[in-house]
Amino acid sequence: MPPVINPNNELNFSGGPGALPSSVLQQVQEAIVSVPEVGLSILGISHRSDWFAAVVQELETNIRTLLGLGDDYHVLLLQGGATQQFSMVPMTLLHGRNQPAEYLHTGYWSGKVLGEARREGPIRTLWSGEAEGYRRLPTDEELDFSADAPYLHYVSNETVEGIQFHRVLGHDHVPRVCDMSSDFLSKPCEADRFSLIYAHAQKNIGPAGVTVVLIRDELLQNVPEDLPGFLDYRSHIKAHSNFNTPPVFAIYVVLLVTRWLLNEIGGLERMDEINRQKAQLLYGFLDRSDGFYRGRAATADRSLMNVAFNLATPELEQRFFAEALAAGIFGLSGHRAIGGVRASLYNGLTLRAVEQLVGFMADFQQRHQA
Amino acid sequence: MPPVINPNNELNFSGGPGALPSSVLQQVQEAIVSVPEVGLSILGISHRSDWFAAVVQELETNIRTLLGLGDDYHVLLLQGGATQQFSMVPMTLLHGRNQPAEYLHTGYWSGKVLGEARREGPIRTLWSGEAEGYRRLPTDEELDFSADAPYLHYVSNETVEGIQFHRVLGHDHVPRVCDMSSDFLSKPCEADRFSLIYAHAQKNIGPAGVTVVLIRDELLQNVPEDLPGFLDYRSHIKAHSNFNTPPVFAIYVVLLVTRWLLNEIGGLERMDEINRQKAQLLYGFLDRSDGFYRGRAATADRSLMNVAFNLATPELEQRFFAEALAAGIFGLSGHRAIGGVRASLYNGLTLRAVEQLVGFMADFQQRHQA
Repeated sequence: MPPVINPNNELNFSGGPGALPSSVLQQVQEAIVSVPEVGLSILGISHRSDWFAAVVQELETNIRTLLGLGDDYHVLLLQGGATQQFSMVPMTLLHGRNQPAEYLHTGYWSGKVLGEARREGPIRTLWSGEAEGYRRLPTDEELDFSADAPYLHYVSNETVEGIQFHRVLGHDHVPRVCDMSSDFLSKPCEADRFSLIYAHAQKNIGPAGVTVVLIRDELLQNVPEDLPGFLDYRSHIKAHSNFNTPPVFAIYVVLLVTRWLLNEIGGLERMDEINRQKAQLLYGFLDRSDGFYRGRAATADRSLMNVAFNLATPELEQRFFAEALAAGIFGLSGHRAIGGVRASLYNGLTLRAVEQLVGFMADFQQRHQA
Repeated sequence: MPPVINPNNELNFSGGPGALPSSVLQQVQEAIVSVPEVGLSILGISHRSDWFAAVVQELETNIRTLLGLGDDYHVLLLQGGATQQFSMVPMTLLHGRNQPAEYLHTGYWSGKVLGEARREGPIRTLWSGEAEGYRRLPTDEELDFSADAPYLHYVSNETVEGIQFHRVLGHDHVPRVCDMSSDFLSKPCEADRFSLIYAHAQKNIGPAGVTVVLIRDELLQNVPEDLPGFLDYRSHIKAHSNFNTPPVFAIYVVLLVTRWLLNEIGGLERMDEINRQKAQLLYGFLDRSDGFYRGRAATADRSLMNVAFNLATPELEQRFFAEALAAGIFGLSGHRAIGGVRASLYNGLTLRAVEQLVGFMADFQQRHQA
């Protein structure tokens, strides 16, 4: 008989795949044996079934409802992660263009984006935070957007460094393309000001293995004709995200998370309130720790999703990880690219969990302060 | 409290995603709440954890053990399904080659392969079963393989039409590339006679969302340098299938299936025996039904995985589906491309399930025979 509730999942601060709401985990557990409407395991239901078509339809509708998006956007559920989008975006939008698309280099992930985009066509790095260790984001004054770029690309939240844009960038008449992988559906995002948004699921909305793409129809006027079918957004649009066998399980979990957002949380404004409470609690504690815990990010650009900080020495950080784990608190190691500590506060993580983390951190500080 | 056993899953003849062994489903159900070795939900464990690295390592080892493959093959776990391989294979292997690769067109899926391969380089269709409705496969006499083609590509089992090669094709010195999506790990397959084998998981070895690729190292001598990272086999090899966030859940389920094959079934020879018993039972019954049930495939080319057949009229087939469902038997509709009936007998489906199906079919025949 499998356990139904596992308190460890409530204290999982992993940077991704991240914690999911416990009510969703319970439904997923049931679905492994039997999806209520079908009577079969979710792992053995055909992607061509009426039931799965209804899952995709409801998920599309839920995402539109949560973001207030109209029918001028396609909602796609793809494989390949955000990484596949790093290439698909320029393959699609730079076709036949000589002018460079504009990219911001604000951290680890936007650096990865640049590496892949450069293979596909002309791009220009409008701003880079590399020299400052990606501890802050650019101000409006530092960004001289072209009025006629094919598009502007940026990453809304840098998961590794813990910095997040708290405004929408760019000109309204230049298509905005945004990697929202680590803050998608964590708050309202003025989605209709973007031409293309992509986000893998494994932070706020589901397990690894599915990526949501929102794409404005007018962006598909000039797609090259020789793309492989699976790299052509139009194939997936035409097939209602069923061009080839989709990741049925991962899509179903994302559906359950959107139902939770709509029915249990009450929408993205409320989710945002909760996420702000969580982040304020932790950042406030860091700020009052007299430098025992040292936040990485410039205050104005602090991420509500990923709180990255350091302790005085790497040895003390190792001790911190070991004691946290012994206290049943998981996933606090920083990304291997920069080390340090990172507490990720995705949708599925509760305020109570952050309270427990802060309690542990206060105790740790008391015991280890010089 | 979720149910632990659901008898419906035992009678799921879906063409894919297909039935999984019930002992695997039970472990998966437990892992949704807590993976025993970690104490966290499988959906919230980092793909960069030591645990997940060990999962990938064990899965690679299990696949090598099951197939008797040495270190000259890389074992990769990718996204994008077989469809992504339709493009990646020619992108990788036709680079700088003027001679056409040779393809066989033996059914619905090999037709899809051809459509994508043609975009990437010169190919030649060596044989097509289209005019005969893909009811049979070519004989050796019909296949005039070139001695110097860049590679030969074929599909080992045509899932839609229910025909399967029961021999290895081609010259030993021309690289063999095979889509084994629907019979991978259902039997020994002389894997070391192939240079590249690919198979999505959702038939015999797991849920939709992960694809296994076995690729001989020497095939990677001349990969083009300008491929996007996620389409370059070398990126995935270098990163041990962790180039970008892999589908952690799907990979874990495939690991559980390989453990089941090794420890509960006892290897691929034994799996093959069981699969043959299942297929012989059903085909034998069709053959003795006095034409009430009419097998689609030529006898010599019958698939052990997908048994496709017709009843006298589409109306009778509809009745058959409805009564089967009422009897708790799922997934018998043929593929939308050709209609009819299809019973898929993947690894996870038991001999007892086929006995129950045959019992139902005998009863149905008795009640509906003119």
